[in-house]
Amino acid sequence: MLKEKVMSTALTGNEEALRILADYLKDDMQACNRTIISRMDSPVPLIPQLAAHLIAAGGKRLRPLLTLASARLCGYPYGPEHQRHIKLAACVEFIHTATLLHDDVVDDSNLRRGLASANAVFGNKASVLVGDFLFARSFQLMTDDGSLKVMGILSSAAATIAEGEVLQMSTQNDLSTSIEKYLDVIHGKTAALFAAACRIGAIITERPEREELALESFGTNLGMAFQLVDDALDYAANQGTLGKTIGDDFREGKITLPVLAAYQKAEGVEKVFWKRVIEQNEQTDQDLEMALSYIEKSHAIQATMDKADWYAQKAIDALNVFEETPLRKMLVDTTYYTVNRAR
Amino acid sequence: MLKEKVMSTALTGNEEALRILADYLKDDMQACNRTIISRMDSPVPLIPQLAAHLIAAGGKRLRPLLTLASARLCGYPYGPEHQRHIKLAACVEFIHTATLLHDDVVDDSNLRRGLASANAVFGNKASVLVGDFLFARSFQLMTDDGSLKVMGILSSAAATIAEGEVLQMSTQNDLSTSIEKYLDVIHGKTAALFAAACRIGAIITERPEREELALESFGTNLGMAFQLVDDALDYAANQGTLGKTIGDDFREGKITLPVLAAYQKAEGVEKVFWKRVIEQNEQTDQDLEMALSYIEKSHAIQATMDKADWYAQKAIDALNVFEETPLRKMLVDTTYYTVNRAR
Repeated sequence: MLKEKVMSTALTGNEEALRILADYLKDDMQACNRTIISRMDSPVPLIPQLAAHLIAAGGKRLRPLLTLASARLCGYPYGPEHQRHIKLAACVEFIHTATLLHDDVVDDSNLRRGLASANAVFGNKASVLVGDFLFARSFQLMTDDGSLKVMGILSSAAATIAEGEVLQMSTQNDLSTSIEKYLDVIHGKTAALFAAACRIGAIITERPEREELALESFGTNLGMAFQLVDDALDYAANQGTLGKTIGDDFREGKITLPVLAAYQKAEGVEKVFWKRVIEQNEQTDQDLEMALSYIEKSHAIQATMDKADWYAQKAIDALNVFEETPLRKMLVDTTYYTVNRAR
Repeated sequence: MLKEKVMSTALTGNEEALRILADYLKDDMQACNRTIISRMDSPVPLIPQLAAHLIAAGGKRLRPLLTLASARLCGYPYGPEHQRHIKLAACVEFIHTATLLHDDVVDDSNLRRGLASANAVFGNKASVLVGDFLFARSFQLMTDDGSLKVMGILSSAAATIAEGEVLQMSTQNDLSTSIEKYLDVIHGKTAALFAAACRIGAIITERPEREELALESFGTNLGMAFQLVDDALDYAANQGTLGKTIGDDFREGKITLPVLAAYQKAEGVEKVFWKRVIEQNEQTDQDLEMALSYIEKSHAIQATMDKADWYAQKAIDALNVFEETPLRKMLVDTTYYTVNRAR
């Protein structure tokens, strides 16, 4: 096995990497999309309408792509009788979409928050109920698949996601949150599903536990890197093209590493500033700009990206148990892309 | 087999029936409560706190009681190695609690609605996330149990509940809703879980399909009767003692049989009244009293209760495939109680 030698500072990669991977798995992705469309149908018209708003509209489909890629990396056989990876990839996307819908629910005590789209169009309640429907559908898909092991992994991931989201709520506006707790939050809300999505690829191919755990580690670390970058992007003013609105996390008083890293270095007026805007959530129109300048001064984005690089490197290392195939290379490149989309 | 001879008008029974059933299954219920408490635990403190607000506080526990009773009716064996009924009863309660939490989410476009308690104390978002956690936990419990058949039935019930709730949303404020569609709504939101709760009692006891379907029919029809009575109680002014607030459905413009039955008989000013208060949702403080008088005049509560009696009778008939045991008698009495709690 070739040990990938990548220095943390030498990580490269661009959006092409993801396109190349999706292209390599085009047939699988198309079959997965067909399964998604057919399984989100319901005699109640609002359900496919709202689901289509999120699902059919596209998006990166990163998580189902990871399930498909993991299955293929493990040598999952081709042919019409081998469709478990398709069904389970759809299942992973349903769980992800359900959590997105639920994550966007507006707390009635905090209506200042910017409205997310499905929410804004269909309302809180419809978003919650359609999320529930997709969640239930994902378990129906798992039942069809028939593997109790897969079911155990995905139901446990679903519980961990909810725990991560609740933990995140409880850290909101709290600058005394430790970095460790922040890492627990992003492990729950993001990395757990990445890990499960990858691991089930090995399970359905009946690969040895070593490969199963290697893929779980790849998914976990990729997920951590992905979320760290996502959190960095929320304060990266030149990244408006990536579909994220700058400052959403800031306005919500969400505790992410850029804020924690800046706050932990802050003294005097800076400290007072962070306490006012995050802990007391008292913000004026100029505060985001001020926050960005404090974050820049403290190199908090760099600290966040360094941590993302560290996880990305661990993700890449985990793939070393697999042979050096073009697909493994694509997963490495996708990992590079994940950490580099913020640069 | 004795054919229960019960005239629709002769249904009797009181709250004692439920107490007697719960008492007969006391050991099972206590074991189920212990499973509920231990499985709703989490390292994230807000989760058991919020869950306790609904679950540990008690309530009738009607749905898990139905699973336990069904299992015992089918002769599920006693002994420490036979605990599947306990786990699955807890599972049913988790699904029910999750849907309660999600049903109480306030639509931001409709903040006039009276706040439900978990919601009011913890906010929309926490309620949604803890609901998700309980839902995930229920699937972890099912995975532990290991029956794909049970998993299929409960995941399909969960999808049907979400469909019923979405369908209910889409009928809101719409007086042209047919009674058939209203019955679809209550089948989804209530009867589907009652049916699944009962059916799994037969499955884990490996009873013939005839008994499995008899229990499913018992659950479905009991659930329909239960929800019809619940909807009647929302307009039954003397029932404040039952923990329901009179007029909640009215204020939300929810389409239930009492309103549909009254509206379908209405003419002239009455018709104009219903269109204003329900379709346009323009209500003054005196309108509930006016609605109650129109409902009384049109015998709409009686029509609703007659329908509930009809379903209750079907539920009781379904039990005829079982031997006439004390437990079967208790289930019959509980059915009577269900329809009589409004009288």
